[in-house]
Amino acid sequence: MYFARSRHDGPDGTETRVVVGTAPDGPWLDLRAAERRRLERSGATASASLRLATALVPGSLSAAIAAGPALLEAAQAALEDTTGDIGPTESPRLVNALDPSGYRDSMIFEEHFSFGYRLQGLPVPEVMYELPVAYLGNPDSFIGPGDEVPWPHYTKRMDYELELGIVVGLAGSDLTSDQAVKHIFGFTILNDFSARDIQMQEMTGRLGPCKGKHFACAAGPVVATPDELDWRGGLRMQARVNGETLCDANSADAIWSFDELVAWASQGERIEPGWLIGSGTCNGGSTIEIGRELEPGDEIELEIQSLGILPNRLGTPVAGGWMPPPRER
Amino acid sequence: MYFARSRHDGPDGTETRVVVGTAPDGPWLDLRAAERRRLERSGATASASLRLATALVPGSLSAAIAAGPALLEAAQAALEDTTGDIGPTESPRLVNALDPSGYRDSMIFEEHFSFGYRLQGLPVPEVMYELPVAYLGNPDSFIGPGDEVPWPHYTKRMDYELELGIVVGLAGSDLTSDQAVKHIFGFTILNDFSARDIQMQEMTGRLGPCKGKHFACAAGPVVATPDELDWRGGLRMQARVNGETLCDANSADAIWSFDELVAWASQGERIEPGWLIGSGTCNGGSTIEIGRELEPGDEIELEIQSLGILPNRLGTPVAGGWMPPPRER
Repeated sequence: MYFARSRHDGPDGTETRVVVGTAPDGPWLDLRAAERRRLERSGATASASLRLATALVPGSLSAAIAAGPALLEAAQAALEDTTGDIGPTESPRLVNALDPSGYRDSMIFEEHFSFGYRLQGLPVPEVMYELPVAYLGNPDSFIGPGDEVPWPHYTKRMDYELELGIVVGLAGSDLTSDQAVKHIFGFTILNDFSARDIQMQEMTGRLGPCKGKHFACAAGPVVATPDELDWRGGLRMQARVNGETLCDANSADAIWSFDELVAWASQGERIEPGWLIGSGTCNGGSTIEIGRELEPGDEIELEIQSLGILPNRLGTPVAGGWMPPPRER
Repeated sequence: MYFARSRHDGPDGTETRVVVGTAPDGPWLDLRAAERRRLERSGATASASLRLATALVPGSLSAAIAAGPALLEAAQAALEDTTGDIGPTESPRLVNALDPSGYRDSMIFEEHFSFGYRLQGLPVPEVMYELPVAYLGNPDSFIGPGDEVPWPHYTKRMDYELELGIVVGLAGSDLTSDQAVKHIFGFTILNDFSARDIQMQEMTGRLGPCKGKHFACAAGPVVATPDELDWRGGLRMQARVNGETLCDANSADAIWSFDELVAWASQGERIEPGWLIGSGTCNGGSTIEIGRELEPGDEIELEIQSLGILPNRLGTPVAGGWMPPPRER
């Protein structure tokens, strides 16, 4: 089963709707409308049906996921419906499939992280083989397929990062990797855009990064449930810039498994429905390790087997901008 | 003006209410009840008054702050009300004053961060004087005054951190430090609990920290509006453990100003109402730099001038727990 989100203009401005389908490129059914009609057919009044369907299927996918099995049951019923009450959404304008309720990212592809440390003039730290270390990113910065990537004033060196995104379905703490499996709602393509110059400067402080990452992430075009893809075996991961393939990797090269990432995230804290956990960049999945540089207007396409294609275009650098005056040591 | 939150048990379980007062130790008025009665007196029906008051004053303070000036206007009206319609809440059980919509923390006190790097066997990096570097923390981990601090299974070395917390009031991007001032809603005491052993291990990877921080933060007992305290001049900051004063510092020793912290947070991204921005630990504001260690059951009290006292007790270590099996290099 595949989830996405579409946008519609109405009297209250732009509204986001959760849609569901059986393939990563649609067609898409509006899930709230399908659930509303199902309730009406069961005998609920029109207004009660709308009230209940809106509570179960808000515009936020992360909020909808928090309903637990009830969301998947409604999606299944919508896809199996043969009444023809609700037809597919015509030419939907898809936005970020997930509006995560929290976002953390990892570094679990050895070639990528080894290059990153060498670039900083450092040996690869032991901790990379001891723990699947992570940092928190900005869940308010997500954009969707086709959206332009803002280029902040403080960077000259923009980059993409090709990652697999794991979407948490059930809350839980202190899980083993075996227990963690049932806490996975699904998977998505994640582009963790990076401002390399300031990221490297920030990381010398051993904190964050923040400004190297917070300006934008993209997720989508879909969130697929785990049964739709071979996430344990291996998924082909590709990146293209202006049509040229710059990366052709595989998720099987990660040194930690995706259930281990979720289990580690849950130690000592509670993972929440709608959280997004990034795998970190796959091997060769950014420009720094292949000696390329990006320009404003570049078209970036990320593709992961069974998850579709996530396209974005780099925007134009913002001019000016405040920087903090440096301090005397 | 001071905001806090109290909890009440009802038919739907525990409910959190926003309360308002003119001193950090109360007395407290229930703001939704006061606004509901104000609307009734103006001619609205009882049910419309409840609906509107609930929309303006939900149980989440960060959601209430997102209403902008309307929240402050309602609070002002409640405090000026002389009808006696709504009396002070008797013996309120206060919870975390802020349930932040996002949380980032900084390191802007030179003695504290210099000690931290020396402890890791490192020179103090240049970036600490170039930028007020930060990292994101877990906004879902907040506890309140009097709450027990969970002790995760993966640490033997628990610590407190005495910090000033800045609460964002208005959304904004790419602000100067002058512009940032009006985006500050208020201030609170922040205890950024830390698991030092795993924090130091994580930071060798130059990411995060995550597990060193995510298990708990405390905020409260109040959020004070900026007019209530001398945040530009300097605030006395004290930490006590089991009644013994271990820290007596001042916020004026920060090397970056609090408006600069907010301005930097807004570069290239949008700060949102209800975000909490920590100052980082004040000089001497944790046990590592004074050679002390904490034990289960220790009572920690943080006090900041004009902001009250934030007490917490350390819990008992959780036994067992899953750890990821290390990888071969």
